[in-house]
Amino acid sequence: MSRRRHNRSAEKTLGTSPGTLTYVGVEIEHATKIKRIDYNATDYHIDAPTKLIACQLPVPETPYVHWIDVDGIHEPQVVAALGKQFHLHPLLLEDVLNTEQKPKIDLYDDTVVFVTLKMLHHSRERQEIEIEHVSLVLGKNYLISFQEERSKDIFDPVIERIKLSSGKTRRNGADYLLYALMDVIVDHYFLITERIGEKMDELEDEIVQERATQQTLGILYKLKRELAFIRRTVHPLRDVIATLLREESELIQHNTLPYLHDLADHVNQIIETLESYRELTSGLMDVYYSIVSNRMNSVMKTLTIFSAIFMPLTFIVGVYGMNFENMPELKTRNGYFVVWGVMVVVTIGMITYFRRRRWM
Amino acid sequence: MSRRRHNRSAEKTLGTSPGTLTYVGVEIEHATKIKRIDYNATDYHIDAPTKLIACQLPVPETPYVHWIDVDGIHEPQVVAALGKQFHLHPLLLEDVLNTEQKPKIDLYDDTVVFVTLKMLHHSRERQEIEIEHVSLVLGKNYLISFQEERSKDIFDPVIERIKLSSGKTRRNGADYLLYALMDVIVDHYFLITERIGEKMDELEDEIVQERATQQTLGILYKLKRELAFIRRTVHPLRDVIATLLREESELIQHNTLPYLHDLADHVNQIIETLESYRELTSGLMDVYYSIVSNRMNSVMKTLTIFSAIFMPLTFIVGVYGMNFENMPELKTRNGYFVVWGVMVVVTIGMITYFRRRRWM
Amino acid sequence: MSRRRHNRSAEKTLGTSPGTLTYVGVEIEHATKIKRIDYNATDYHIDAPTKLIACQLPVPETPYVHWIDVDGIHEPQVVAALGKQFHLHPLLLEDVLNTEQKPKIDLYDDTVVFVTLKMLHHSRERQEIEIEHVSLVLGKNYLISFQEERSKDIFDPVIERIKLSSGKTRRNGADYLLYALMDVIVDHYFLITERIGEKMDELEDEIVQERATQQTLGILYKLKRELAFIRRTVHPLRDVIATLLREESELIQHNTLPYLHDLADHVNQIIETLESYRELTSGLMDVYYSIVSNRMNSVMKTLTIFSAIFMPLTFIVGVYGMNFENMPELKTRNGYFVVWGVMVVVTIGMITYFRRRRWM
Amino acid sequence: MSRRRHNRSAEKTLGTSPGTLTYVGVEIEHATKIKRIDYNATDYHIDAPTKLIACQLPVPETPYVHWIDVDGIHEPQVVAALGKQFHLHPLLLEDVLNTEQKPKIDLYDDTVVFVTLKMLHHSRERQEIEIEHVSLVLGKNYLISFQEERSKDIFDPVIERIKLSSGKTRRNGADYLLYALMDVIVDHYFLITERIGEKMDELEDEIVQERATQQTLGILYKLKRELAFIRRTVHPLRDVIATLLREESELIQHNTLPYLHDLADHVNQIIETLESYRELTSGLMDVYYSIVSNRMNSVMKTLTIFSAIFMPLTFIVGVYGMNFENMPELKTRNGYFVVWGVMVVVTIGMITYFRRRRWM
Amino acid sequence: MSRRRHNRSAEKTLGTSPGTLTYVGVEIEHATKIKRIDYNATDYHIDAPTKLIACQLPVPETPYVHWIDVDGIHEPQVVAALGKQFHLHPLLLEDVLNTEQKPKIDLYDDTVVFVTLKMLHHSRERQEIEIEHVSLVLGKNYLISFQEERSKDIFDPVIERIKLSSGKTRRNGADYLLYALMDVIVDHYFLITERIGEKMDELEDEIVQERATQQTLGILYKLKRELAFIRRTVHPLRDVIATLLREESELIQHNTLPYLHDLADHVNQIIETLESYRELTSGLMDVYYSIVSNRMNSVMKTLTIFSAIFMPLTFIVGVYGMNFENMPELKTRNGYFVVWGVMVVVTIGMITYFRRRRWM
Repeated sequence: MSRRRHNRSAEKTLGTSPGTLTYVGVEIEHATKIKRIDYNATDYHIDAPTKLIACQLPVPETPYVHWIDVDGIHEPQVVAALGKQFHLHPLLLEDVLNTEQKPKIDLYDDTVVFVTLKMLHHSRERQEIEIEHVSLVLGKNYLISFQEERSKDIFDPVIERIKLSSGKTRRNGADYLLYALMDVIVDHYFLITERIGEKMDELEDEIVQERATQQTLGILYKLKRELAFIRRTVHPLRDVIATLLREESELIQHNTLPYLHDLADHVNQIIETLESYRELTSGLMDVYYSIVSNRMNSVMKTLTIFSAIFMPLTFIVGVYGMNFENMPELKTRNGYFVVWGVMVVVTIGMITYFRRRRWM
Repeated sequence: MSRRRHNRSAEKTLGTSPGTLTYVGVEIEHATKIKRIDYNATDYHIDAPTKLIACQLPVPETPYVHWIDVDGIHEPQVVAALGKQFHLHPLLLEDVLNTEQKPKIDLYDDTVVFVTLKMLHHSRERQEIEIEHVSLVLGKNYLISFQEERSKDIFDPVIERIKLSSGKTRRNGADYLLYALMDVIVDHYFLITERIGEKMDELEDEIVQERATQQTLGILYKLKRELAFIRRTVHPLRDVIATLLREESELIQHNTLPYLHDLADHVNQIIETLESYRELTSGLMDVYYSIVSNRMNSVMKTLTIFSAIFMPLTFIVGVYGMNFENMPELKTRNGYFVVWGVMVVVTIGMITYFRRRRWM
Repeated sequence: MSRRRHNRSAEKTLGTSPGTLTYVGVEIEHATKIKRIDYNATDYHIDAPTKLIACQLPVPETPYVHWIDVDGIHEPQVVAALGKQFHLHPLLLEDVLNTEQKPKIDLYDDTVVFVTLKMLHHSRERQEIEIEHVSLVLGKNYLISFQEERSKDIFDPVIERIKLSSGKTRRNGADYLLYALMDVIVDHYFLITERIGEKMDELEDEIVQERATQQTLGILYKLKRELAFIRRTVHPLRDVIATLLREESELIQHNTLPYLHDLADHVNQIIETLESYRELTSGLMDVYYSIVSNRMNSVMKTLTIFSAIFMPLTFIVGVYGMNFENMPELKTRNGYFVVWGVMVVVTIGMITYFRRRRWM
Repeated sequence: MSRRRHNRSAEKTLGTSPGTLTYVGVEIEHATKIKRIDYNATDYHIDAPTKLIACQLPVPETPYVHWIDVDGIHEPQVVAALGKQFHLHPLLLEDVLNTEQKPKIDLYDDTVVFVTLKMLHHSRERQEIEIEHVSLVLGKNYLISFQEERSKDIFDPVIERIKLSSGKTRRNGADYLLYALMDVIVDHYFLITERIGEKMDELEDEIVQERATQQTLGILYKLKRELAFIRRTVHPLRDVIATLLREESELIQHNTLPYLHDLADHVNQIIETLESYRELTSGLMDVYYSIVSNRMNSVMKTLTIFSAIFMPLTFIVGVYGMNFENMPELKTRNGYFVVWGVMVVVTIGMITYFRRRRWM
Repeated sequence: MSRRRHNRSAEKTLGTSPGTLTYVGVEIEHATKIKRIDYNATDYHIDAPTKLIACQLPVPETPYVHWIDVDGIHEPQVVAALGKQFHLHPLLLEDVLNTEQKPKIDLYDDTVVFVTLKMLHHSRERQEIEIEHVSLVLGKNYLISFQEERSKDIFDPVIERIKLSSGKTRRNGADYLLYALMDVIVDHYFLITERIGEKMDELEDEIVQERATQQTLGILYKLKRELAFIRRTVHPLRDVIATLLREESELIQHNTLPYLHDLADHVNQIIETLESYRELTSGLMDVYYSIVSNRMNSVMKTLTIFSAIFMPLTFIVGVYGMNFENMPELKTRNGYFVVWGVMVVVTIGMITYFRRRRWM
C-alpha cells in the first residue's frame, strides 16, 4: 500500500480524450508475457506466443475454451492490439490499463463480460500488502486475463489444474474459468485477512496485558488503514458477483451459478470478518485509553502520597530550624525526640488516610 | 471463541479445486456416530447404523419421515458417501464440512433445502462460548442433520419428544422437523444472551457503584467481543428464515409457516437484545471513564490542597531559618509565637479558600 | 424496569415443545378477573362472569360488538379455555402468556388479527417504569383483550366512554375498539416521554450550570437505559400499525383507517422525541466531560502557580540558611532586607507571568 | 424553543375520545382574525369577515380561487365551524389545533389535501427560535390556511403579490397558492440556517483561535440543540412534498409540479446544510478538547520544570543548613561559592534536559 | 471555500416571487463572454458573438451540433434573453443564476435536459478551493453551457479537441458533448482529491512521527471541512448521472451510455476516496490524542520521580537543620557522612522502585 503511488495518475490523464490508452502504474522494462491455453474435457494445448498474431480470435465453432493470459499491462500497444482482434470497447481497454480502477463489472451487449478486480499479496520483505490490477474479459468461448507483471503468475494453480486432470475446470466452459480465476483471487483475500487476524490477536494481547506502548497504537492505526483499504478492494466485488448472477447473461451457463453463489458467499464472509476486525480495533482503542488513564491515575496518586507525607514533615523540621532566640521547645531535653514522635504519628496518619481512600 | 482456531482453514483449502471436501475444524479421533430415526404419527424406529449402507435413500412413497442424524463431521468420506446416496451438490457437502461457514440457506432446484447454522453452548469449565457447526438438509420426506461431535447430541430433546408422544412433531412432516431442530438451537441462543445479560448486570453494578478496576474493563471488552461474535452468528439466521418463508419451496408445507414466523420472531428478539446490550456497553464505558476522571480530579485536588497549605508554611519557617546577623525579628521576645500565629492564619485562609471553591 | 425479571423465562421454556403454554411473568395469587362487554350504538351490557362458560363465542349474526377483557394472564388454563372457545392458534396463546414477547402483529387467515404490545406506567413509589404485557385478539365481531393483573384495569376509560355516551366507540365496530384500546396505551407513552423530558431538563440545568456531580452521570446513564428500553417497546408498534394499514384485512373497516393513520402518526412522534432525547444525552455527556476537564485544568493551574511562586522563595531562604563560615552576605547590614526585596520581585514576576498566560 | 412549553399537552388530551378538539398551545385572549381573499387572473377581493358565515363554501363553478386565511387557532369553536362548512374530517381539525403535531400530509379521498408544517422565526429579543404551527387545507378551488396568532401574518407577502400584479400567483389555481405559501415558509428556514451558519463561524473563530471558554461550549451545545430541533422540523417536509408529487392528486395541476420539485430541492438543500453544520459541531468539539488537553499539558510541563529545577537546589542548600559539628565543607574558604557553582551547573543541566525534550 | 460568501443569498431572494431571476454570487463588472461553436464530423465554426441575436435557436435540421458557451452569469438579462430564445423554463434559468444551487438534474418534457454542477479549482494563491457554478442545458441538437466568470474558460480543452481533430467529440452528438464537459469537471475533482491525499500524507507523517503541534490539529480540522464540502459537491452528481442513465431520454443516444457509465464510475471512485480520507482523519485524531496523553503521562512521571526522590532527601537534611540543643547525632564524628549514606540509599531505592514500575 505504497501511499504516494497513485499521485501521478490524475495528472497523467487530465485533459486527454476519454478512451485514450495510458498506463498509469509502476514502470516496468520487460516485454509483456502472453500465454495461450486451449482446452476441453479431452485435450489441451499451452502456447507462449511471441507474436501477438498467434492470439487470433478463435472461430466460434472451435470445440475448445481459449484462455489468453496476459502477464503485464505496461505496454499499451499490446493491450490495444488484443483489443482490436477481439473487438473490445475502448473504455474496456482503458480500464484494463488503469491500475487505479476499482473492482467493477461491465457488460457489453451480451457478447462480452468485463470484470476487473485486485489481487492482494502480503509481501514479507516490505511488510505491506501488494496490489495487482487484474482484468478478466469473458467472451463466447474465450477468456482473456490481464495482470500486472509480478514475480509469479497468480493463475499458475489453475493452469496446473488444467494440465493435471480433466476435472471440473476442463469439463466446463469459459464462464467456469472466469469463476475459477476469481476464486483464486478471493482465496488469497482469506490469507490476507487471516494474517491481519493474527496481528489483531498479538495487538490485543499486548494491549489487554498492558504491555502496549505508543508504538502499539501506531501499528493499530496502520492496521486500521489496511483494513479500510482491503474493505474498499473487496466490497465492490460483492456487486460484481451479484451482477453476474442477476444479469443472466447468455455467457454464464446455468450450472456455473451455484459456484458463483458460493463465491459471493466467500466474499461476504471476508467482508464480515473485516467488519468485525474494524469493530475490534475501536474496542482495543478504548481499552488502551483506559489503561493510559489508569496509569496516569496511578502516577498522580504516587505523587500525591509522597507530597502529602513529606510536605508536613518538612514543615515540622523547618519550624525547629528557625533561629528565634526565644523558642522554648529547643531547650527542652526531649524536644528532638518528641518531634520525631509527632512526625511518626503524622506519617502513620497519612498512610492510614490513603489506605482508607484505597490509594495505597 | 478460541481465537486462533480458524487460522489454518484458508491455507488448508488454498489452491484446491472448488468443491474438494476438506474438514477444517478441530481434529477428532472417533468414528462418526450416525442415528437413523423413521417416524410418523403412529409409529417410530430408531436405528444407530454402523454401516452407512443402512442410510439408503428412502423410497419416496414411504409413509415415514426419515431423519438421519450425523454426529461428527471430521470424516469427509462419511459425508461424501451420504452425499452420493442423496445426490447432494458438491458445494453443499463442502459447506457441511467447512466449520468456518457462516449461517446461510441454499435451495437446490426445489428438491433440497440446505440450512447451515451455529449451535452455541456456554462452556462452564472454559468460561467461553463453544461453537458447533450444524447443517440441515431437507429433502422430499427426509432430513439429514450434521453436527460437530461434542459431548452430547444437541438434538436429543427432539428425539425424546419423538419417542415420548405422538404429538406435533410426529404428526407433521420433515419440514416441521427442520423447524424443530432450528428451534432447539435458537432456544440455546436465549440461554447465552441471558447469561450475558447477567454478566452485564454485574458489570453495571460494579461500575455504577464505583467498584470497577482496570480488570472490569477487560471483562467489558471481552463481553463486547462475545456480543459481536454472537451477533455475527445470529444475524444471518434472519435471512435464512426469511428465505424459507419467502421462497415458497414445495418442501415447506403451509401449516409449518406460522412456526417459522414464530422462529423469525425469536431470532429478531435475540438480535434486538444483543443490540441493546451493545448500546449498554458503550454507556457503561462512558460512566467508567467519567468515574476515572473524577477520581483523577479528586487526587489532584488533594495534592493541590496539601501543596497550597504547606508550601507557604515551609517558606515562612525557612525565612526564620536564615542566618543573617541582622534579623531584628529573631531577637524579639514573641517573634516565634507571632510566626506561629501567622502560620495558623495562613492555614485557615487556605482552607477557607478551598472550601469556597468546593474542593474540600 | 426490574433488570433481573426476565432471567427465568428462557430456562423455563427450554426444551418444551413449541406452543406449550407457560406463564413466565411475575407470580400472582388471585383468580383471573374477566369482564364481558356487549355493545352497539343503542345498547350495552357489562358482565363480570365468574365462569368462563359465559364467554362463549357469540353467534356471528349478533348485532353487538363483544369485548372480553381478561385482567390477569397468570392462569394458563383460563387462557387455554378461551383459546379453545375462540379457536385460537396455540402460538397465539403462547404469545399472550409470554410476558417477554416484544410487540408484534400476527394475522391468522383473515379471521383473527392478533396484536401484542406493552403498557408502560411510571410507578411513583418505585421510581421506575412498570411494564404490562397486553394482547388484543380481533375477530369478526368480537375483541378479546388480555392484560397482566395490576392495581387498576388500564382500559377503564374506554369502558367509561362506552357507558357514558353512544359516541364514536359505540357506533363503530370491533376494529374501532381495537384502535381505541391501542390509543389508550399510546397516550400513556406520551406521559412517559414527557416525564423523561422533564428529567432531561433538570439534568441539563444541573450540568450546564456546573452543578453536576458523579451522581448526575449515574442518573443520565439510567435515563439512557430507560430511553433505550422505551424505544425498543415503542418501535415495533410502528410496524404493527403499518401492517394493519397495509394488509387490508377484512376485519378492518375503511372508516377506521384514518384513525389508525393518526395512531401511526402518534407513534412516530414518540419515536422521534425519544431519538432527540437520545441525542441530547450524548450532547450532555460532552458538556459534562468538558466541565470536568476544565475543572481539572483549573486545579492544576492553582497547583502550578503555588509551586512556581513558593519553590523559588523557599530556595532563596534555604540559601541563607546554610551554615558556611564564609558567607559574606550574612554579615552585611541590610542583607536580610535585600533578600526580602528579591523575594518580593520574584513573586511579582511570577504573578505577572501567570497573568500574561491568563492562568490567573 | 421554550423547553417546557409542551409539557401540558399529553395530560390535557389523555383519556379524551380521539377527534376531540382541544387547543394545546400558548393561551391567547383576542378573537381569531380571518381574511378571505378571492382572486383570479383578472380580479381580486379581500375581505376581513367578522362573521364566520361569510366564509361559506364557494360554489364549485366560481371562477375565483378562494383563500381563507385564519390567523389564530386558539378558539376551537372557530376551527370547528370552518370544519363543518367545508366538511373536513375531525382528525384533520384535531391536527390543526394540535400545535405539537409534527409536519405531515394527509389526503382525504382526493377531495382535500391537508398539509401541516412549522413556521420558524428567529426572535431577536428572546434570542431563540419561535415556532408557529401552520396548517394548509387545499380543496377543489379553495385553500384554508391556519396559523397561530403572532405579531404579524406570515403570509402577508403573498397577499401583497396578489394585490400588486396579476402575475404567476393570480394566473394559477389554489394548488399554486399552496406551493406559494409553503415556499414562503421554506424561505424563512434559509434565514434561520444562515443565522446559525454565522454563529458557527463565530464559534469556530473563537475555538480555532483558542479564545474559547467553558461558556463557548455551552453555546455550542445550545446550537446543537437548535440544529436537532430544526432538523426535526424540516425533515418531514421532504416526505410531505414527495407525497404531493407522487400521489398525483387531481387537486395538483401538472404545471405546478416543477415548482414543487423546486421546493423539494430547497428543502433538501436546507437538510444538507443542517447535516454539514452538525458534522462541524462535532469537529469543533474535537478541536476544543485538543486545545484543553494541550493547555493542561503546558500547565503540567511548567509545574514539572519548576519542580525539577528547584527541588534539587532546595535539597543542596538544605544539606549545608544541617547543624552537624563535623561538616568539613562548611569550614572551607570557598565552600559557599562552590555550592553556588554546583547549583548553577544543576540548573543549566536541567534546562538543557528540558530543551532537548522540547518542553521549553 | 470563503465561509461568509453565501450569507446574502437568502435575504436577497426572500419574498420575491419564485422564478424571479436574481444573481446571488460575487459581483463582477465585465460583460458576459459568449462563444458559439458549431461542429460536425467534417466541419466546425467558432464564433464569439457580441450580440445575443447571433445565438438564435438553430433550425432542427441543421447538420451541426450547436454549442453556446456562456462565460459569466452575472448579467441576468443575458441569461433571460437566451432563455427566451430557447424557450427554457423560468425555474431552469433561476437555477442557472443561483450559485448556491447544489448539483442536480431536471428533465423538462423530454425536450431539454438540465444539469447543474460545480467546478472545483484549487487556488494556489489563496490556498483554498474555488467553486464555480456550472450549468449545462442539452436540447435536440444544441448544448448551452453556463459558467461563472473566472480567469480561464474551463471548457477550453474541449474546444481545443474540437479544433484539432475530427475525433470522437466531433463525430458524436450534443449528448456526447454533455458527457465531455462533465468529464472535464470530474477530472478536476481527481486533482483536488489527490492534493488532499498529499496533505493527508503530510499530516499523517507529522502525527505518527510525533511532530504534531496544536496547529496540526487546526489543519486537520480545515481538511475535514474541505472533505465534507467536496463530498457535498460530488455526491449529488451520482444521482445526476444515474438519472441520465435511467431516464432513457431521447436526447441521450445509445452509444453515449458506456461513456456515462464510465463517468458514474469515476464519480463513485472519488466519493469512495473521500470517504476513506474521512475515516483516516478520525483515525489520525485518535493517534494524536493518544500521543498527547502519552506525553502528559511522561511529564507527570518526570514530576513524580523528581518529587519522590527529593522530597525525602529534603526532609532528611531538614531534620538535621533543626536547632534542638539536645540532638545527639549532631555531635557524632561521622553523623554527616552517615546521613549522606542514608540519602544515597534512599535515592537508589527510589530509582530501583521506579525502574521496577517501568517509569524510568
